[in-house]
Amino acid sequence: MHYPEPISKLIDAFTRLPGVGPKTAGRLAFHVLRMKEEDVLDFAKALVNVKRNLHYCSVCCNITDIDPCRICQDKSRDASVICVVQEPKDLVAMERTREFDGYYHVLHGAISPMEGIGPDQIHIAELLKRLGDEGVQEMILATNPNIEGEATAMYLSRLVKGFGLKVTRIAHGLPVGGDLEYADEVTLTKALEGRREI
Amino acid sequence: MHYPEPISKLIDAFTRLPGVGPKTAGRLAFHVLRMKEEDVLDFAKALVNVKRNLHYCSVCCNITDIDPCRICQDKSRDASVICVVQEPKDLVAMERTREFDGYYHVLHGAISPMEGIGPDQIHIAELLKRLGDEGVQEMILATNPNIEGEATAMYLSRLVKGFGLKVTRIAHGLPVGGDLEYADEVTLTKALEGRREI
Repeated sequence: MHYPEPISKLIDAFTRLPGVGPKTAGRLAFHVLRMKEEDVLDFAKALVNVKRNLHYCSVCCNITDIDPCRICQDKSRDASVICVVQEPKDLVAMERTREFDGYYHVLHGAISPMEGIGPDQIHIAELLKRLGDEGVQEMILATNPNIEGEATAMYLSRLVKGFGLKVTRIAHGLPVGGDLEYADEVTLTKALEGRREI
Repeated sequence: MHYPEPISKLIDAFTRLPGVGPKTAGRLAFHVLRMKEEDVLDFAKALVNVKRNLHYCSVCCNITDIDPCRICQDKSRDASVICVVQEPKDLVAMERTREFDGYYHVLHGAISPMEGIGPDQIHIAELLKRLGDEGVQEMILATNPNIEGEATAMYLSRLVKGFGLKVTRIAHGLPVGGDLEYADEVTLTKALEGRREI
């Protein structure tokens, strides 16, 4: 005994999403069954639109519905700085600080030999082209503070050595609101190393 | 700074699913962005099909793509027993036992005064019609072993008192593979009450 085909197909589709197991998928599918038809249609349309109407910005590789993206079109920003991030989400996190008014470059990943991702699989070529062209003076490496992110930052900093660029890495240290007691040794070591006079 | 509209719409749609918060919704939406276009189209189609091609079986109220559903069409089953469950998922759980070969009735809910669900909001009228019609001799109440399920079972058993039916309730007790030490008092009391000679 199985579910009727339409529902088992939907359960399959949900199961393919990350972090969704068969039980959750079943729960979600039955929820969809109880949703209003127009809401389900909107959901389906949103899925297709994301795939059809979004692409990568030809300049910074961020996802966008217009090309170049809104940030790259914004002439009021500081063209001398490019902040390199791994994912579109990281760009949004940076924008939330309201402290950065340069441009971005989104790599869409990080170098990870373990997962077979080399420099050619992420958008480094586009970045190099921009660094040569646009009168950029500083590249801020804002990749994640983990092995892959560090490796990518290290790789990029070596790659652009001859470009005469200032290359910076965002600081490691204690998160604000964090607790010294619960900080791991590596973070604490980095926080000590990065100490500044006040 | 926000995400482009297509992606924020999809994040909204995911957020409306049960147990999906904004962070998970973002993760899922970006996953969809990376999926193959044909897989996304299949997903969208599955969503719409569930809503368009599934309805309730006119006999047992289970969800089905044909009417009557496959179980109600199966003449080899025992027509003298109807097993009453709350949800289609419960029916599937019962079928997995391969121990029951009667017919089912799916209530799609349980009586719950707390949530304002009375006997008229669940499919009891359809059940009563069947009990009168079809030469049914036994009704097994397989609603959930919680307050709402018990209340529904109690309500149904009283409702059919004049029908001359055998009304049974599935047993409460220790789950197989469970641990006496961790059983709650109510379950253990029920297990004692329901003890059988071996």
